[in-house]
Amino acid sequence: MKSMKFQIHKKSTKTKARTGEISTLHSTFQTPVFMPVGTKATVKTLSPHEIDQLGAGIILSNTYHLMLRPGADIVKEAGGLHNFMKYSGSILTDSGGFQVFSLAKLNKIDDDGVTFREHIGGQYIRMTPESSIEIQNKLGADIIMSFDECAPYPCDEKYIEKSIKRTHNWAKRSLEAHKNIQNQAIFGIVQGGMYKKYRKESAEYLASLDFPGYSIGGLSVGEPMELMKEILDSTTDFMPIEKPRYLMGVGSPLELIDGALLGVDMFDCVLPARLARHGVILTEHGRLNIKNQRFMRDFTPLEANCNCYTCTNFTRAYLNHLFRSDEILGLRLNTIHNLNFLLRLMEKLRKAINDGVELEFRDSFFSTWGDGKYTL
Amino acid sequence: MKSMKFQIHKKSTKTKARTGEISTLHSTFQTPVFMPVGTKATVKTLSPHEIDQLGAGIILSNTYHLMLRPGADIVKEAGGLHNFMKYSGSILTDSGGFQVFSLAKLNKIDDDGVTFREHIGGQYIRMTPESSIEIQNKLGADIIMSFDECAPYPCDEKYIEKSIKRTHNWAKRSLEAHKNIQNQAIFGIVQGGMYKKYRKESAEYLASLDFPGYSIGGLSVGEPMELMKEILDSTTDFMPIEKPRYLMGVGSPLELIDGALLGVDMFDCVLPARLARHGVILTEHGRLNIKNQRFMRDFTPLEANCNCYTCTNFTRAYLNHLFRSDEILGLRLNTIHNLNFLLRLMEKLRKAINDGVELEFRDSFFSTWGDGKYTL
Repeated sequence: MKSMKFQIHKKSTKTKARTGEISTLHSTFQTPVFMPVGTKATVKTLSPHEIDQLGAGIILSNTYHLMLRPGADIVKEAGGLHNFMKYSGSILTDSGGFQVFSLAKLNKIDDDGVTFREHIGGQYIRMTPESSIEIQNKLGADIIMSFDECAPYPCDEKYIEKSIKRTHNWAKRSLEAHKNIQNQAIFGIVQGGMYKKYRKESAEYLASLDFPGYSIGGLSVGEPMELMKEILDSTTDFMPIEKPRYLMGVGSPLELIDGALLGVDMFDCVLPARLARHGVILTEHGRLNIKNQRFMRDFTPLEANCNCYTCTNFTRAYLNHLFRSDEILGLRLNTIHNLNFLLRLMEKLRKAINDGVELEFRDSFFSTWGDGKYTL
Repeated sequence: MKSMKFQIHKKSTKTKARTGEISTLHSTFQTPVFMPVGTKATVKTLSPHEIDQLGAGIILSNTYHLMLRPGADIVKEAGGLHNFMKYSGSILTDSGGFQVFSLAKLNKIDDDGVTFREHIGGQYIRMTPESSIEIQNKLGADIIMSFDECAPYPCDEKYIEKSIKRTHNWAKRSLEAHKNIQNQAIFGIVQGGMYKKYRKESAEYLASLDFPGYSIGGLSVGEPMELMKEILDSTTDFMPIEKPRYLMGVGSPLELIDGALLGVDMFDCVLPARLARHGVILTEHGRLNIKNQRFMRDFTPLEANCNCYTCTNFTRAYLNHLFRSDEILGLRLNTIHNLNFLLRLMEKLRKAINDGVELEFRDSFFSTWGDGKYTL
């Protein structure tokens, strides 16, 4: 694969965790990695240079949103997503499927594709594996996704059986439709609902298609966390060792750690940035709400010993003031802190895996996180 | 004056324009200067480091807003406004008077002060020259304002006669109440409505009190631009040559140039940043609206040859996309451009004054600005 290289540095002997490195034409980053989400060609509130400073290495952007606005052709005319948004790191795009099922109205699925009314102007749009890949080729991200059906939760066995057949057919068609293999690596998406046998079947079928990497879809869709972990565990068991594994839309600090221990290499989630915009700050002692009156005269940083721009320059009192005053700078500074918190967490997690102490790291993180120092 | 030094570099022989330099304990900046507005201890959407990069040198912040939230005591406990918002340049605060008359409800003025209901929580507040100065001492800006009455427009002669007596009395009391003369320079505010004789009287009376600098208040309050210029002209005629003159709340690019030609050294206005947040971009060919459909595929910068962060990195097409998508980054990038535009304009204006060609500069700027290249 010229478009992407994945190299494993260390495989744990105690858990399924591993550390590694992914190189695309735009950047090299260490795994397990957390990817900040830049839905509409911008990581909300941040400039691309601030993303660089955070050291993210890779961000995610959403095909569904970009195809509606500004449209894939405009992004292509701009020279692709990297040029359009002026981000020089790696970019991953999803297939658009997830948003078609969650945001669009009146979607109608058949074996060939999906017809839906998009949520902005209400236009009818037809989307197929071929059109999703064509759009993603125009957007030009380093890593792209096959088109899949993300089944709802809960969902009966019969529907899942039918649905993964469709997803597998679409994966094959996506792979065949992908024209830009020199620059873009395509991942197949494992589905199967909460049924271990279908997860196994899906993982094994997709592995047979020899994608450069694999995503795990249809998790973190409302099921209990313990069930998610159980299904994830039984999914990664059947995924190729030597290919990167991406758990889509996950997650919280606890889920990132547990996901990595179950063998996941890549994660993305809107949560840390969304929480930040609501004034909820991630710290190693759990979440705190910067709006809280007790921070009005607190002249310490959001988190002691944090190296982010926000914590090295500003106090909780100032951030409390900005938030209460509806000032945009507050949203920016909170976002920088929360993303930095997760990126540093992944750094510590990688070190723990490399040192063979990931279980101890997990225990230590969980107990500090849950020490009740902050209650929202 | 230890707290502030003003030095005139060049006085024009053709107009009343002059260039100079103001030094406070925090920075030295060239005049005529445009001061970006940081109403609530933040220049909306920007970080203090971005303000530094713009090279503003001085910003303005509002006493009325800060005394309500977070409150002057909290700012004082934070070590003053510079520390609170982490801005290392100079800061100027107004007296709060203007907002008391424009934002607050049910204000009742008497010779001793004003009682009003503040616009956030509806509390009754009593404000006097002494309390305004006490608050400004706590905020700790480099340049502070005497408490004045800003009369409405239009306003009859009888009222103005009474009003300037009050403003003069308040100016004297403000000067006496000011306790921190080593660190903060206080300006007296000239009033007088649209009546030349009261403007003269006010300018002369305040000059007799020997303030370190003088503001011109009560202009740009709804009167026609020609009347504003006429009154301004007859006001600066009676103001001391060797002290800085600050025209409050002005203004547009055209007003900045004409104001400087009438002998003004300092300006502030929320307009360029507010326009930016509404997608209206300042260019030398006038204003353009970035929301406009014709910019969707325009892959050129907002303004050719502009050196700002926005123009050196992003295209109109991307900014159009950000604005249509309600993305905060769009507001930030537009604000950077508009403030940079005005700061560069002042730089060119100072050069023109130094070169003795300010009238030619004015003509050239006005004709390009009005060439109709963009119509909103």
